[in-house]
Amino acid sequence: MASYHKPESKTIQELKDIANKLRIHSIEATQACKSGHPTSCSSMAEIMSVLFFHTMRYKVSAPRDPSSDRFILSKGHAAPILYAAWAEAGLFPVSELLNLRKFDSDLEGHPTPRLNFVDVGTGSLGQGLSVAAGMAYVGKNFDKASYRVYCLIGDGEAAEGSIWEALHFSSYYKLDNLCAIFDINRLGQSEPTSLQHNMEVYRKRLEAFGFNALVVDGHDVEELAKAFHEAQNTKGRPTAILAKTFKGKNFPTIEDLENWHGKPLGNKANEVIQHLTGLLKNSGPLGLHPQKPLVDDAPVVDINNIKLASPPSYKLGEQVATRLAYGTALAKLAKNNSRVIALDGDTKNSTFAEKIKTVDPTRFIEGFIAEQNIVGVAIGTACRDRAVAFVSAFATFFTRAFDQIRMGAISQTNVNFVGSHCGVSIGEDGPSQMGLEDIAMFRTIPGSTVFYPCDAVSTERAIELAANTKGICFIRTSRPATPVLYKNDETFAPGKAKVLRSTAKDQVLVVGAGITLHEALKAADELAKAGINIRVIDPFTIKPIDAQTILKNAKEIGGKIVTVEDHYVEGGLGEAVASAVSLERNIIVKKLAVPEVPRSGPPNVLVDNYGISAHKITLAVQDILKL
Amino acid sequence: MASYHKPESKTIQELKDIANKLRIHSIEATQACKSGHPTSCSSMAEIMSVLFFHTMRYKVSAPRDPSSDRFILSKGHAAPILYAAWAEAGLFPVSELLNLRKFDSDLEGHPTPRLNFVDVGTGSLGQGLSVAAGMAYVGKNFDKASYRVYCLIGDGEAAEGSIWEALHFSSYYKLDNLCAIFDINRLGQSEPTSLQHNMEVYRKRLEAFGFNALVVDGHDVEELAKAFHEAQNTKGRPTAILAKTFKGKNFPTIEDLENWHGKPLGNKANEVIQHLTGLLKNSGPLGLHPQKPLVDDAPVVDINNIKLASPPSYKLGEQVATRLAYGTALAKLAKNNSRVIALDGDTKNSTFAEKIKTVDPTRFIEGFIAEQNIVGVAIGTACRDRAVAFVSAFATFFTRAFDQIRMGAISQTNVNFVGSHCGVSIGEDGPSQMGLEDIAMFRTIPGSTVFYPCDAVSTERAIELAANTKGICFIRTSRPATPVLYKNDETFAPGKAKVLRSTAKDQVLVVGAGITLHEALKAADELAKAGINIRVIDPFTIKPIDAQTILKNAKEIGGKIVTVEDHYVEGGLGEAVASAVSLERNIIVKKLAVPEVPRSGPPNVLVDNYGISAHKITLAVQDILKL
Repeated sequence: MASYHKPESKTIQELKDIANKLRIHSIEATQACKSGHPTSCSSMAEIMSVLFFHTMRYKVSAPRDPSSDRFILSKGHAAPILYAAWAEAGLFPVSELLNLRKFDSDLEGHPTPRLNFVDVGTGSLGQGLSVAAGMAYVGKNFDKASYRVYCLIGDGEAAEGSIWEALHFSSYYKLDNLCAIFDINRLGQSEPTSLQHNMEVYRKRLEAFGFNALVVDGHDVEELAKAFHEAQNTKGRPTAILAKTFKGKNFPTIEDLENWHGKPLGNKANEVIQHLTGLLKNSGPLGLHPQKPLVDDAPVVDINNIKLASPPSYKLGEQVATRLAYGTALAKLAKNNSRVIALDGDTKNSTFAEKIKTVDPTRFIEGFIAEQNIVGVAIGTACRDRAVAFVSAFATFFTRAFDQIRMGAISQTNVNFVGSHCGVSIGEDGPSQMGLEDIAMFRTIPGSTVFYPCDAVSTERAIELAANTKGICFIRTSRPATPVLYKNDETFAPGKAKVLRSTAKDQVLVVGAGITLHEALKAADELAKAGINIRVIDPFTIKPIDAQTILKNAKEIGGKIVTVEDHYVEGGLGEAVASAVSLERNIIVKKLAVPEVPRSGPPNVLVDNYGISAHKITLAVQDILKL
Repeated sequence: MASYHKPESKTIQELKDIANKLRIHSIEATQACKSGHPTSCSSMAEIMSVLFFHTMRYKVSAPRDPSSDRFILSKGHAAPILYAAWAEAGLFPVSELLNLRKFDSDLEGHPTPRLNFVDVGTGSLGQGLSVAAGMAYVGKNFDKASYRVYCLIGDGEAAEGSIWEALHFSSYYKLDNLCAIFDINRLGQSEPTSLQHNMEVYRKRLEAFGFNALVVDGHDVEELAKAFHEAQNTKGRPTAILAKTFKGKNFPTIEDLENWHGKPLGNKANEVIQHLTGLLKNSGPLGLHPQKPLVDDAPVVDINNIKLASPPSYKLGEQVATRLAYGTALAKLAKNNSRVIALDGDTKNSTFAEKIKTVDPTRFIEGFIAEQNIVGVAIGTACRDRAVAFVSAFATFFTRAFDQIRMGAISQTNVNFVGSHCGVSIGEDGPSQMGLEDIAMFRTIPGSTVFYPCDAVSTERAIELAANTKGICFIRTSRPATPVLYKNDETFAPGKAKVLRSTAKDQVLVVGAGITLHEALKAADELAKAGINIRVIDPFTIKPIDAQTILKNAKEIGGKIVTVEDHYVEGGLGEAVASAVSLERNIIVKKLAVPEVPRSGPPNVLVDNYGISAHKITLAVQDILKL
């Protein structure tokens, strides 16, 4: 270990002063907007002071510089002290802190990347460490750079399982460039935390999870500086600093008391500020300044304009599962860009994410069965545009990470989600394995793009488009093999539907996607024999839905639309179409979708029994013709 | 500890034989349907044999008897051996096992409560222990009965954070009637697990999480029997049995090898069955039989027809937040029925779940910040109709438990979810805290009821109705105080909307809910001044949506509907309405909803800025009148 030099007493006093200044700022800002969490800020004031003015190496002038140390505030409700630290570091005037939580300020109630010094949104608890682990994974394995990643976690949120997933991941991958700091201030929102100040239990748990665990007095800047030094010099495993702190530290008559969570100090503020001011020893300008990185060793990365290494290469009618085409496309993208990576949770041989390993085994991150953490790690890898991440799972298991995905949108992430095994067409495994709510879930994500390709060609292009599309992309793939419908040179775009069957005599418009599109085509053949022509549309993306093409074709055929989807009706394709045409008179939409919790059984039996087969489409078409 | 008597050698041999018989059944069943997980069954065969024929006390004649021990198979993909154990126990003929995964059989790919010996659906990994903890909590604290709860967990799924949430919960509440068995068979689906057979790491982690942790040879029935005895006699903390096992145990050329996950044995089956048959020592009928409970000491419980202890008692126009009315109603229900309980994750003073403590503090379960586990525990408490559970959180944080909620529907649970702090109307805390996708999420749940009451009276009735409604109920409550609109004697029903404003001259129908209903009423007043009359409907439930009332009124006013909701547009109120009228020509729907990730700010500023204020409704009404 590099030998430790105790900071000079002047430095120590300045670090103490900065901590109390940060406290004062946190009080003043929350007083100004009459809301917020000053006591949650106070417990971590010394940690912030030491990190930002002694330990971390970063550029105030370029807050997202790739070679800088990263800091993730997992306990996002302590935003005021994060903002105060950056203000004291010189990024913006301290006076701006008083704009906290105002509508026209980016200093929001919880941090979001609208601020240039924030990488991800936090505020839903227990998510920060997964993101930090993703950043550390990139730093160690892809960037191979010197920067370190610090993540500050509240003790309340340490009850979230996602924290333990992230701890396990971090020690398994030996992320010694990661330092997790637990602010153990004993008090939750509504009562004390379950472990209160039982520091030995924390130490045992962290050690059992493979961390170098250091218990420190979280209000002693010297102890903190020493612990961070040890963390920097610990190889082969990450370090956890377990800081025993007090909520509302240095707030007389408030410190360590219940019922002060999430409340500004009100009429106690002046007295507390006076007390804190009295603790300051150096009233003049700061002698301490943030330290820049020793070396700028993060490589330049280009993730723009990523293309398939070779175009799709299939025969029309060839039977290929779209999940397999995902794997093929992923490998092709990875071949062309060294920053395309894939993550999965022990389903890589089902989702076909494993195909990336044929190009470069190091580009695959196995997350084991811990979907929340995998999603968080993926978001972390994609921060500061260091990687284009594809994360895959059975579609339905992304429900496990809905909160992480939701926060991903707030974080402005560009992570791509690939969900296989959608719908009843998976067959015998039964409802627990069937994605039947995934379209609804991903549609709710602001700015998302939801691809639902029906064949191998369109899947490869969907994956390529996703790699270049901002915001969250979801690509829904199917388990069964389905025939290739598109020529290899077909072009695709989000929000652009394809008309696959069309005659002048069409009476009904059928919109299917994935396996139901194939059922729709079969239905078209069947109905044609009976003299009924239907138009068939492949929407390609469910969000954005191609309202223009749907409206134009619906009007041409007399306003009768049948939608059919391997998904529950709520929030799925049918509602997307009904929603898109809701301002048009004279267009009606009949929705075929899975109506209840399905059973196990052969795919074709299930597809028919739950009302989304070619046969059921023919019946629906005949029904709607009567309206 | 009650002294341990080693089983007789005849018993030991029978237990060994049963294990191998269960293996044979698992192979034969998966051969018959050509799918399933025989190797995952094999690793746990001795555990099942000892549990079902030596340790557990239960009634084969009444699989859901309240006084029986419970068994939860968290690794649901091992369903065939669960079914085989019950068949060998005598519940149904062994020959039925060959119907595995057939459409007309309840022996599904993963267990569901369609089977009378299954309490909850499993198959999404890592969820069983929370459910088991909920059952054990009820057994210890409400039933105060002798039954014990056993939960078998796979080592792969032990990576799920929800397992660690459940472990912490179980030790915190000293659930010594709970026994968690980890089947540590070293192999996941696509590669070895991260910890493989590192038994000492498991032991350290379990001990650090407060368990009595016993490492055993999971294929040694004697060791298992002894460990279960120790578990039964360990007081003050739950026991974890860490069973070192081998995937495909006793399957020659398959045991402990990769690439055998989720595959029937195919042409190796005969050889393996022959080998297993050769291991059987007693070919005759079983000498061992399941043991009945020593005492039937679980009390009779009645959770039918639960009523508010007193009717709502508000003044019209009185300002009351619906979240507060939830707390009031909860306490009233709890007063009238001793099995009404509430769970929350350290937000009880915000959701007002804490009000139940005024009636009976023991009826509240604090789950700390671990939403997945809280939801799982709630599902466990409600099993076998032992409790009526209300679980509350900020609405958006139920996204953390979407997978558990989804599985709850498969589990046929009747748990009630109360989500507070919905939408932008929470104000300054910002988007991470705003429920903007919760309606969409709960609408996708099969059989769910989604209440969205607009005032205190309707909230109290929604809570009362939820307590008596089968399936998952979601009640969405708001943070700000809103005026009471309904008289105290107003009656409500799911799927029954209320027409709040109506004249013969109405030109537009506005459907609002929660805070937007109040905005709609304000808009009605404003528009009336300009000579424009609108009809205003409170849907009360978003699912089922009262299509009949909406259609009738829409037709009366000329087919123009404006919906307005404090939620994203996808899957919310607007799409529910558009969906409900999608088969009607001449009805159009304009949807006002939050269009993007919101910012922090004062509630009224946000409500207007994101387009759902009274003013924005007046503009939308004027717009739609032009169509």
